[in-house]
Amino acid sequence: MHRVQFTAESSSDGMVERDFTVGGVPGVLWSPVSGPAGPAPLVLMGHGGGTHKKHRAMTGRARLLVTGCGFHVAVIDAPGHGDRPRTAQDEREITELREAQAAGEPRGPVVVRYNARLAELAVPEWRATLDALQELPEIGAEGPVGYVGIGLGTALGVPLVADEPRITAAVFGMMWPDALTGAAKRITVPVELALQWDDEHIPREAVLALFDAFASKEKSLHVNSGKHRELPRFEADSATRFLARHLGRPVTSPA
Amino acid sequence: MHRVQFTAESSSDGMVERDFTVGGVPGVLWSPVSGPAGPAPLVLMGHGGGTHKKHRAMTGRARLLVTGCGFHVAVIDAPGHGDRPRTAQDEREITELREAQAAGEPRGPVVVRYNARLAELAVPEWRATLDALQELPEIGAEGPVGYVGIGLGTALGVPLVADEPRITAAVFGMMWPDALTGAAKRITVPVELALQWDDEHIPREAVLALFDAFASKEKSLHVNSGKHRELPRFEADSATRFLARHLGRPVTSPA
Repeated sequence: MHRVQFTAESSSDGMVERDFTVGGVPGVLWSPVSGPAGPAPLVLMGHGGGTHKKHRAMTGRARLLVTGCGFHVAVIDAPGHGDRPRTAQDEREITELREAQAAGEPRGPVVVRYNARLAELAVPEWRATLDALQELPEIGAEGPVGYVGIGLGTALGVPLVADEPRITAAVFGMMWPDALTGAAKRITVPVELALQWDDEHIPREAVLALFDAFASKEKSLHVNSGKHRELPRFEADSATRFLARHLGRPVTSPA
Repeated sequence: MHRVQFTAESSSDGMVERDFTVGGVPGVLWSPVSGPAGPAPLVLMGHGGGTHKKHRAMTGRARLLVTGCGFHVAVIDAPGHGDRPRTAQDEREITELREAQAAGEPRGPVVVRYNARLAELAVPEWRATLDALQELPEIGAEGPVGYVGIGLGTALGVPLVADEPRITAAVFGMMWPDALTGAAKRITVPVELALQWDDEHIPREAVLALFDAFASKEKSLHVNSGKHRELPRFEADSATRFLARHLGRPVTSPA
């Protein structure tokens, strides 16, 4: 089993940031400056396509979870993203995606195939990372684990949550469901899913079908007006409250 | 113009409760015990079918809005509800509704027709009540006004909000949309709508069509797993945050 290797540490505004690697995969762990005596819940976050573990969407959500709830938050770079090298196949798929965009063709078929390949690589990486993080005394093997991922983070997260019984609540959104429905049907933990009603890329009917597919007794779908890139900021607050409800810590700051 | 006639006053847990009538229609106004120096926003709430202005669903939501946001909250009894007499036509429609339920027949057609008639009576009552409440110095004519109504409160609220430019944000849910689509198309203020995914009475496709009909630039649909009567309690918190966002007061208590 791989262990967590910490490579850098800093802190600001109530949050400690530690860079790490597990089996060569680079990640970041954000934790409260002054944590509780015992272990605290852990939230795994999957970043979006073309971004990386410290994108502002990740740091912003991490701050809500760490300073608002006292949780730990970990993100790892997806294959071919952030500090990880791109393979020739990555380059081919990215070129194909850019050509589809430039030609005004639907990007869905390219993204679905590309992200499904990344998910096959990323799911075992995430599970090894979780194994290693649970060895840390401030996290531990007994505490609850949540998952948050939008876009690529959903493409990797749905198969991860389906396969990983340690994850007990998950937030998804903004991904074509084509490759995900089978895994969604195996998910029984509480789920919150986001849908942009005026999404110019992802058909709303497809997302409604994905929502229907989750086997979860407790599931919520948050539909908002607006296009693909206009997911409202208040959905990050909502995701924080959802995880606070299900991982067992109240939100302590005004929301 | 009718004036507010206060008939009783009490207070508990940070909330002052004043019974009133406006033009013979009985209502209740909840306010913060220690209010701000100037006027505070007002939220009108419509109660559900078969209930009344002080049903626990009303007092519970009022407490969140009054103690959490410093708002005033007013509810009036709908025609034939609470302290108001039933007419012979009310009795006939209620009997018809009970017969449909007992026979296992769809209740939608009866509720839609009955509630549409109540809306014709209630909209002018609500507008006269709002006129009178805005004469009170602690509310005033300049402040923002919101609306919250589920079930019957949506059947009355959608035509009210469509006709009443003083209302600048509204929360709806749990109603057949058949009589409401025309009015929904005239609503442009921010809207939050609730849908129960496993509703045994109201088809989900019909509610999705109602959501689509609102002309609002900002609109959100909150879908939750569960049957008609299983709307999660956290949707009352969500409605409070929605109104705090749009009526301009932060939520000050942990949510």
